[in-house]
Amino acid sequence: MLNLAELDLPIAGALEEQLDEVVVIFERQLASDLSPVNTLCRHVEQYRGKRLRPILVLVSGLAARKAGDDAGLTERHRVVAAVVEMIHLATLVHDDVLDEAQIRRGAITFNYLRGNETAVMLGDYLISNAFHLCSSLMDAQINLCLGNVTNTLCAGELLQLHHRDDLDINETTYWEIVRRKTASLIGECCRLGARVSDASPEVRDSMYRYGSTVGIAFQIQDDLLDITGDEAIVGKSLRQDLDSGKVTLPLIRYLASADPAEARDARRLFAQGRAEKLRLRLIESGAVRDAEQEAKRLIEQAKAELSVLPAGPARDLLATLADAVITRRF
Amino acid sequence: MLNLAELDLPIAGALEEQLDEVVVIFERQLASDLSPVNTLCRHVEQYRGKRLRPILVLVSGLAARKAGDDAGLTERHRVVAAVVEMIHLATLVHDDVLDEAQIRRGAITFNYLRGNETAVMLGDYLISNAFHLCSSLMDAQINLCLGNVTNTLCAGELLQLHHRDDLDINETTYWEIVRRKTASLIGECCRLGARVSDASPEVRDSMYRYGSTVGIAFQIQDDLLDITGDEAIVGKSLRQDLDSGKVTLPLIRYLASADPAEARDARRLFAQGRAEKLRLRLIESGAVRDAEQEAKRLIEQAKAELSVLPAGPARDLLATLADAVITRRF
Repeated sequence: MLNLAELDLPIAGALEEQLDEVVVIFERQLASDLSPVNTLCRHVEQYRGKRLRPILVLVSGLAARKAGDDAGLTERHRVVAAVVEMIHLATLVHDDVLDEAQIRRGAITFNYLRGNETAVMLGDYLISNAFHLCSSLMDAQINLCLGNVTNTLCAGELLQLHHRDDLDINETTYWEIVRRKTASLIGECCRLGARVSDASPEVRDSMYRYGSTVGIAFQIQDDLLDITGDEAIVGKSLRQDLDSGKVTLPLIRYLASADPAEARDARRLFAQGRAEKLRLRLIESGAVRDAEQEAKRLIEQAKAELSVLPAGPARDLLATLADAVITRRF
Repeated sequence: MLNLAELDLPIAGALEEQLDEVVVIFERQLASDLSPVNTLCRHVEQYRGKRLRPILVLVSGLAARKAGDDAGLTERHRVVAAVVEMIHLATLVHDDVLDEAQIRRGAITFNYLRGNETAVMLGDYLISNAFHLCSSLMDAQINLCLGNVTNTLCAGELLQLHHRDDLDINETTYWEIVRRKTASLIGECCRLGARVSDASPEVRDSMYRYGSTVGIAFQIQDDLLDITGDEAIVGKSLRQDLDSGKVTLPLIRYLASADPAEARDARRLFAQGRAEKLRLRLIESGAVRDAEQEAKRLIEQAKAELSVLPAGPARDLLATLADAVITRRF
């Protein structure tokens, strides 16, 4: 979503170096004395994509320092960045089992390649290693934050599964799912980065609100890309949500605003799995544009939280990242 | 495997009360504000079986106290007992996904698919809650032990999947899988119980060796019950290992000792999925009896580790539990 190398900012170059060190921590943690396990882990590395979560940990860590504090990022920031990326990759590996997806980030998915069994166990191996790596910080409070956010995330996934194919889902439930499934981890990335920088509770809370609001917009943009994106650019199978009975914001908004006959017709298309026809209707009706507006509004709201931080390049980068979440085409 | 209520020992009754409290902690941890999540968790409770792991945490916690120390079990012991049971149930839930994936080679129904998806997420919810509950102890060292043992466990499962249908698996690899997949968690249960009782490093190490050796025998007994057990007594589908391409100790021993023509014939039966014929051959050849002897030898070895503990009813119960692992018929 954001190519740091393209940014003509000194902070971007330094950040790339930090991210390289995060990769070293990540790989060292997963390394096993069993070669079949290492082979699987090498494949996981191909899943790496936008790196949004580790970037947010690091930039939040920089931005949340007190004014005048020149200390850079520490190994603890980089460990937390590796931990959240590991959790995120675990959810992708398990989501692919759920979705029966065949392509992810341009690579063939594990479940397709090696069977669901291996994908389930590999995801478990990633979750376990994330907690183990987190525990190596020897800070029980950070472990508690991580356990709390993964509980929230899993409950969100279960709620979403419960409402699969449920066209009567209301917008409140949609927000509940997104808040838990996507926003909670992104918010925690920002809060943990600030925590490791010893930021005040006030700053930590603002960072959580910034991150979770960006996360909600991020999910809406994911919903939108599934409808309007170009598979070659996005790098994963699209048009999956409607096909797999996942109700997204544009569809909810459409059903809520369409007249009764149109809504009945749309429900019929959904039940019959006629995703392409339904997709065009979401675009033509303005429901897609409406969701885009919602995402824009959220990004402005998120950026307003940044006023609590001292001015500087790290704070500016958080604003740039927020904008990039909804301008991305992948 | 062991009905505590049948034991005419004061310690057994006290232990049952402790286990009831473990259940309360377990259920309180999993409780969610989302009713669909609670419905699933109630279903998990039906998975509860022998309770070997929480029992071992508690009895080890009692047995590893220094001589003359009359302190009973604490909330910390009970929390650890709930944590390990949660991890164990998570592996059962995910193992079901693994096993169902076999059936999946037949026909895929949508209902069936939904079952798999929910099982994956429910298992993740259990793992996450186990780590969260463990973190609530605010002891980073215990978190590190837990992360370490779940890493080992997942790597063992991945190694087993890697060798599925592999008749050339040697006994060294078989032990490697069992040590990681089964023995590590059971060993850690005993060591953690001792750690929470502030036992010396020497005692903690003995407890780990006791538990992991019992765990290996436990797995051999599981292998044996799959071949010789009575489905009505064991309470789960048997004759699964040979059917699903899982190579177990009796088969490895048989192939290693049979003459070349017999071994070729057995490989053919395995490849053709003629599990019943192969099963009878394992019994008649003495390979089953040979594995039984191995399990007995391991149990004696495990009990020898208990000599480091002060004499008393808790130590006696650990010896009784070890014996019950291989005399159990379910």
